[in-house]
Amino acid sequence: MSKLRSDISISLDGFVAGPNQSQENPLGGGGELLQEWVVPLAAWREAHGKQGGEVNESARILEESRENVGASIMGRSMFGPPSGGDWGDGDWKGWWGDDPPYHHPVFVLTHHAREPLPMEGGTTFHFVTDGIESALEQAREAAGGKDVMLWGGGQTIQQYLAAGLLDELELHVAPVLLGGGARIFDDLDPNNVQLEQVRAIDAPGVSHLKYRIVK
Amino acid sequence: MSKLRSDISISLDGFVAGPNQSQENPLGGGGELLQEWVVPLAAWREAHGKQGGEVNESARILEESRENVGASIMGRSMFGPPSGGDWGDGDWKGWWGDDPPYHHPVFVLTHHAREPLPMEGGTTFHFVTDGIESALEQAREAAGGKDVMLWGGGQTIQQYLAAGLLDELELHVAPVLLGGGARIFDDLDPNNVQLEQVRAIDAPGVSHLKYRIVK
Repeated sequence: MSKLRSDISISLDGFVAGPNQSQENPLGGGGELLQEWVVPLAAWREAHGKQGGEVNESARILEESRENVGASIMGRSMFGPPSGGDWGDGDWKGWWGDDPPYHHPVFVLTHHAREPLPMEGGTTFHFVTDGIESALEQAREAAGGKDVMLWGGGQTIQQYLAAGLLDELELHVAPVLLGGGARIFDDLDPNNVQLEQVRAIDAPGVSHLKYRIVK
Repeated sequence: MSKLRSDISISLDGFVAGPNQSQENPLGGGGELLQEWVVPLAAWREAHGKQGGEVNESARILEESRENVGASIMGRSMFGPPSGGDWGDGDWKGWWGDDPPYHHPVFVLTHHAREPLPMEGGTTFHFVTDGIESALEQAREAAGGKDVMLWGGGQTIQQYLAAGLLDELELHVAPVLLGGGARIFDDLDPNNVQLEQVRAIDAPGVSHLKYRIVK
């Protein structure tokens, strides 16, 4: 059974991005602190075309999160640009250069239609204008029986949680406070979201907490 | 060196008590879900005068949290009654019966002076009207070199965090959403609270995340 999975870094006070997100600072104030556990990892560096790096307990978590994924979904604000609006001259091709680290079809939620955008390395961005359920349906079809990864941002994860469509959520809890920004558990009816703890993993500078959403 | 330590159960969406706390429901709506990991434990039952119960990874955490504690501090709302105000006829002696599960001096933060209240089993409640720093000073003195435990509620922990007086904080993260209630990380300046992850422990239905506060 193909699952919809998501994992995201979160501060101890519950923010997945800091306050005042902008084109210069897409993660918001202090948001880079959420990534301090992952950026030094060899597995992360390799996926972003860099060499060297650390190997620790988090490497296994990161590798596992990539396994058996056949397609993904992301919100428009994660694909960018943060200025939003329509696609203008169509020059924007994401944050990741010519060879994005996905290597499978990626469905971008947007209010503005756009032709599919094939990139190098097997990634094609598809733009979905008719809502989160349609995006999931198309991603499931494209995944060919594998799982679908939901990348974020926070608001997109919140929407899939609220709609009861998410199957697994892993939180990478960073030992920092951001004091403001984007949450993922706001505006949910707690009676409609039942979670079951799968595991908690201790790693340098981060705790990985994995949950199954009970249907 | 005597430390000020605190540990508290918290929901995945960051609440240490649910909405609408009252005398009938001191933990607020859904707040009892935060305690589901601890109430079945043999160690918890024994401390509350009951027999039997479960032994699992959480038992070790609970025992460790009681070790080397010579005195404690709690907010008035945790001592009760939740109606607050002055002490009336002085009949209120806490929630815990004649033999409270502390067995050492407990300093209660309040705006209303009251004579010390000795109970059975070594617990004496002292009522402190001149603020959190005075309470800590008196508790340290009474602890005789051992650590001081800060029990809560959430607002009290928040105050000690904001004042830079807390040394260790362990969060028992329950796999539930409460949707509202009391937080402990609100209204803090994130630049003034630096945390270091000590460990993360996986246990049935709860994750124990321990942090040191960097001075």
